[in-house]
Amino acid sequence: MKVSVLSFIFQVLLIILFGVLVKYDPKQAGGFKEGESHDASEEGILRYPVFQDVHVMIFVGFGFLMTFLKKYGFSAVGYNFFLSALAIQWYIIIAGCIEHRGTTGFSINLDISKLITADFSAAAVLITFGVVLGKVSRLQLFIICILEILMFAVNEFVLLEELKIADAGGSLVIHCFGCYFGLAVSFMLRNINNNDNPKEASVYHSDIFAMIGTLFLWMYWPSFNSALVLNPNDQQRTVINTYLSLVACCVTTFALSAFVNGERKLNMVHVQNATLAGGVAIGTVANMIVQPWGALLIGTLAGIISVLGYNYVTPFLNDSLKIHDTCGVNNLHGMPALLAGVAGIICSRLASLDTYHDSLTNVFEAREHRTRAKQSVYQLVAVVVTLAISIASGLITGFIVRQKIFDPPRPDQLYDDESYWEMPDATDESLKEGVNEELMKTMAEDKV
Amino acid sequence: MKVSVLSFIFQVLLIILFGVLVKYDPKQAGGFKEGESHDASEEGILRYPVFQDVHVMIFVGFGFLMTFLKKYGFSAVGYNFFLSALAIQWYIIIAGCIEHRGTTGFSINLDISKLITADFSAAAVLITFGVVLGKVSRLQLFIICILEILMFAVNEFVLLEELKIADAGGSLVIHCFGCYFGLAVSFMLRNINNNDNPKEASVYHSDIFAMIGTLFLWMYWPSFNSALVLNPNDQQRTVINTYLSLVACCVTTFALSAFVNGERKLNMVHVQNATLAGGVAIGTVANMIVQPWGALLIGTLAGIISVLGYNYVTPFLNDSLKIHDTCGVNNLHGMPALLAGVAGIICSRLASLDTYHDSLTNVFEAREHRTRAKQSVYQLVAVVVTLAISIASGLITGFIVRQKIFDPPRPDQLYDDESYWEMPDATDESLKEGVNEELMKTMAEDKV
Amino acid sequence: MKVSVLSFIFQVLLIILFGVLVKYDPKQAGGFKEGESHDASEEGILRYPVFQDVHVMIFVGFGFLMTFLKKYGFSAVGYNFFLSALAIQWYIIIAGCIEHRGTTGFSINLDISKLITADFSAAAVLITFGVVLGKVSRLQLFIICILEILMFAVNEFVLLEELKIADAGGSLVIHCFGCYFGLAVSFMLRNINNNDNPKEASVYHSDIFAMIGTLFLWMYWPSFNSALVLNPNDQQRTVINTYLSLVACCVTTFALSAFVNGERKLNMVHVQNATLAGGVAIGTVANMIVQPWGALLIGTLAGIISVLGYNYVTPFLNDSLKIHDTCGVNNLHGMPALLAGVAGIICSRLASLDTYHDSLTNVFEAREHRTRAKQSVYQLVAVVVTLAISIASGLITGFIVRQKIFDPPRPDQLYDDESYWEMPDATDESLKEGVNEELMKTMAEDKV
Repeated sequence: MKVSVLSFIFQVLLIILFGVLVKYDPKQAGGFKEGESHDASEEGILRYPVFQDVHVMIFVGFGFLMTFLKKYGFSAVGYNFFLSALAIQWYIIIAGCIEHRGTTGFSINLDISKLITADFSAAAVLITFGVVLGKVSRLQLFIICILEILMFAVNEFVLLEELKIADAGGSLVIHCFGCYFGLAVSFMLRNINNNDNPKEASVYHSDIFAMIGTLFLWMYWPSFNSALVLNPNDQQRTVINTYLSLVACCVTTFALSAFVNGERKLNMVHVQNATLAGGVAIGTVANMIVQPWGALLIGTLAGIISVLGYNYVTPFLNDSLKIHDTCGVNNLHGMPALLAGVAGIICSRLASLDTYHDSLTNVFEAREHRTRAKQSVYQLVAVVVTLAISIASGLITGFIVRQKIFDPPRPDQLYDDESYWEMPDATDESLKEGVNEELMKTMAEDKV
Repeated sequence: MKVSVLSFIFQVLLIILFGVLVKYDPKQAGGFKEGESHDASEEGILRYPVFQDVHVMIFVGFGFLMTFLKKYGFSAVGYNFFLSALAIQWYIIIAGCIEHRGTTGFSINLDISKLITADFSAAAVLITFGVVLGKVSRLQLFIICILEILMFAVNEFVLLEELKIADAGGSLVIHCFGCYFGLAVSFMLRNINNNDNPKEASVYHSDIFAMIGTLFLWMYWPSFNSALVLNPNDQQRTVINTYLSLVACCVTTFALSAFVNGERKLNMVHVQNATLAGGVAIGTVANMIVQPWGALLIGTLAGIISVLGYNYVTPFLNDSLKIHDTCGVNNLHGMPALLAGVAGIICSRLASLDTYHDSLTNVFEAREHRTRAKQSVYQLVAVVVTLAISIASGLITGFIVRQKIFDPPRPDQLYDDESYWEMPDATDESLKEGVNEELMKTMAEDKV
Repeated sequence: MKVSVLSFIFQVLLIILFGVLVKYDPKQAGGFKEGESHDASEEGILRYPVFQDVHVMIFVGFGFLMTFLKKYGFSAVGYNFFLSALAIQWYIIIAGCIEHRGTTGFSINLDISKLITADFSAAAVLITFGVVLGKVSRLQLFIICILEILMFAVNEFVLLEELKIADAGGSLVIHCFGCYFGLAVSFMLRNINNNDNPKEASVYHSDIFAMIGTLFLWMYWPSFNSALVLNPNDQQRTVINTYLSLVACCVTTFALSAFVNGERKLNMVHVQNATLAGGVAIGTVANMIVQPWGALLIGTLAGIISVLGYNYVTPFLNDSLKIHDTCGVNNLHGMPALLAGVAGIICSRLASLDTYHDSLTNVFEAREHRTRAKQSVYQLVAVVVTLAISIASGLITGFIVRQKIFDPPRPDQLYDDESYWEMPDATDESLKEGVNEELMKTMAEDKV
């Protein structure tokens, strides 16, 4: 009820804020006068297919990836939908205000690149959602979304505009931020966590639903990492690097998954998640000249880190630090993003004009006036800043949302759609019939 | 049996008709002579990704959206596939004949734009399919498809070629037509409807399957609305408007869904359907300069109308007018399309050269010689014409298909794949085993 | 265990091989020097959306198509993922070595076209996987993948570089090769096949999962066939031909499926598979001027062949030749590919400069110096060569992998994830609860 009213009011507020602040990019507002060039806009339309790929990752990719829980599928795919639609609108306002800070009477201009960055901001919120999946109410998620977008936009501004670091695929800006913000929130919610909950498990078909999410994320990740890379050559290189990192990560995950298991069986959690770590880990350096073998190496390392993370780090975080992470986001987004950060530090240190030619300032905008040594220090600073901002703001957010007023779920409501959704009959009619026939038959025999 | 023979003969007939009437667009037939320009054709290939998005909406979007019924999933996704493939071929012939009416020896030239319009025609048939889902045989659907495409092409011709109205996203041409045609058919079938059928319900996983359809429709709707918008600037504006309308509609739907429910629970029917109303409602004005806030407003209104429609209008139509609407198509396509019609009347009245510059005649072809007041009257006429043609032809079609010769289903065959498909064993083997173990254990305890 | 260690070692080996042999295409390595043209590279980015469509076909299309088995969904979608990621890397090395045979110090240059051909090679392996689905271990699949890619690349080289045949959609190179290689492997595994296995069946929802695969394959097939067609006009013609062949094949499949069934019911196996035969059958001639009616005719024939194949040929192969084909790959890929081969022979015989103009040498590279009669003979030779290489190498591969060392599954492990994957609890909790309530109630009544 509270969340219904609140989100409706917020939507009305957004219409007003858009009315005051947001316009089309001048090119779309009334088209060109005759004789003017259409080039920039055609550029936008060339970028459109890549935008759509990212869009699929946000809504189907993240949405279905989280349907693995047996009784939480409606919430997983539904809240994912709601949060993204909310984050997108809110981010456009916040990021626009930050961009035009200190000026008055500005207007935020929308073009397709803005839609891409808005989708990216939603990704950060969804990563956080993965940490707290099943453990918070929709009202809590609403608050988390509003606060996280605010701090996400601040961190993004610091990294890209102030520190001018390279982070093509947003490993730091998106994945690192979203993960550690979420883990910090989860730490603050530690008292209401409910471990060993039998509902925190999958069933056969929910695991297959989750694979829809996994595969769309995996396939379109080259679009994610290259969506905002402008030069066509750099863009192709970004695609190739991401593609290679992902295939290596997939093979590695399958190799290790059965290896770390006592019975030598594969684990769907690894297949659903660790296979994607290659996309995160290559993110920061995706447009750099790491060479094909370098991309494979990064993907392989990401697969190793991620599988081992599911086996050893997640239990440790849960048992020792009381940080419960439903989707194992630390293994898919967190540690691979730190790997990406390290790769960024190394690769920016190595990047010379001889190797990069024209691409150098495409990739490292600040190399116009910075040495490569200095650039690599900035890349390191960016990691530290992101961790600091995400963890601090996550702790505060967690403190806020754990208040009773935000309707935290009771223990029996955890990982369960039941309290929040009108449910269809619990069992499939045909199934019950089949079972009853069985029952009757067995009972009949019993009586004889 | 009848439908098998009939559709095979029809397919052979289509081959013959294509042989006589249809050619490649001259550019694809033998390529260019040396020195000729390739521009127009490159245009076509630029449009290809957008075509593919529309294609996904038709086959996966509509197909999976309708899998929500627990025992009708094969028919939902299967008939959707069959009807679309049929409609596409038939529309190419019919629309080509209308285009070249009055001439002889003409040939219909195929290029990618034609494939897009053919996919659009299938959408209208699928909207109608949504109304009658589970209540008609495949033979009835075959007849509905053939007749509907005929009248769809007539209505489309009247609106776009005679009245020269603006309707970029086809809210009137496609959504309004398909919906009211379907409701009229359903009205004629009222005697064979079977209310309170326990099979007209979902199960947990069928609702998640339906979300696949919802999300692909939702994500690719900007492609749907912009697929035939030619100028890159106008195309970007169309994308932005549609995107914004959809995110606002999504948030609004979630806000209202729990609000209108007695227990404050979310309803999957709303999430699956009402979230999409924003795409329909922005359709007619999607390429107009409505400003970002205008797009959000339209999306918000569409969400409100659609959720309230599911709660109040659908029961009213069913109880009072005996119009049963399985998917609630009136709430997703019908009323939002009327909202789009109204928005079109208003926005065309406001459209001045000062605001639109070059885009004016892109958006409103007839503004070369019409005043804006006159254009807005034509937009109104288009709504009336579409309602008239769709309802009249729907009533006639409904009268035809309800005849015994077209195999209407018996009451026990409603909403059930059983009579029409070879079925796998009713229950999952592993499930039965698990249950039997339970059973044995409980019985053992019972005896003690 | 063996396969885990082996695939990890192989992944490390691939990193080393890539380090020695593979570079970015010079355009991506350091960008252009100032003043150089970017055209070729922009071409690459135009091709990117088509690449992504192919990518979806490989991972979601093939992956989900094979989830139809009730207890083998994890393996279907999981091994599909693993095998593709493996094949892609290995093919890049093998094809590059063949391309540069006889030279030393070469480097393999990666661009987006290479990624497309790598994805294509994975398709051949996945077709073979369809034949042996459920009957081999992951270790056996690993070996099959490594050996098949080797021979695939040889056959591809012979057809495209030596015989210089036209095969735009890879009907011979990919579909024919993958199918007959797989059938030959299956023939060698005939002793361990287990017919009439109750696990070789679907359940209701697994059949709907499979439709996800079917539809993504079907929708994106125009991208598959046109992915490597360079000229925009030829590319559009390829799209149109493939689109038309597929819609005709879909309608035909629905017409025949119920017709060949005793009870006049539709069969999901046909809908899932035979609808796709049109994409294979048009493949070789997809970029030729077959005219729209010709495309419809080919699609219709493909649908007929495929449905009849499922009804008559598959049982014959199984009973008489002891070739078991889990997915009926012979009906979807094998026979339609032979139809494509015949169409290629006929169409190349008819292809004149008068009809094709500029397109002639785009489509038939060798027509610079060959007559059309000669070209059609080469097309025939290509079919024979492909059959010979695929069957011979398939037999050898089958002989190798049936050795005990490669862990062939025991009879009880066939078509079953259980031995290879950590499984969730067999039954859905909510389902068991529902059933237990039923049980209690029935028992209570029983005692009275």
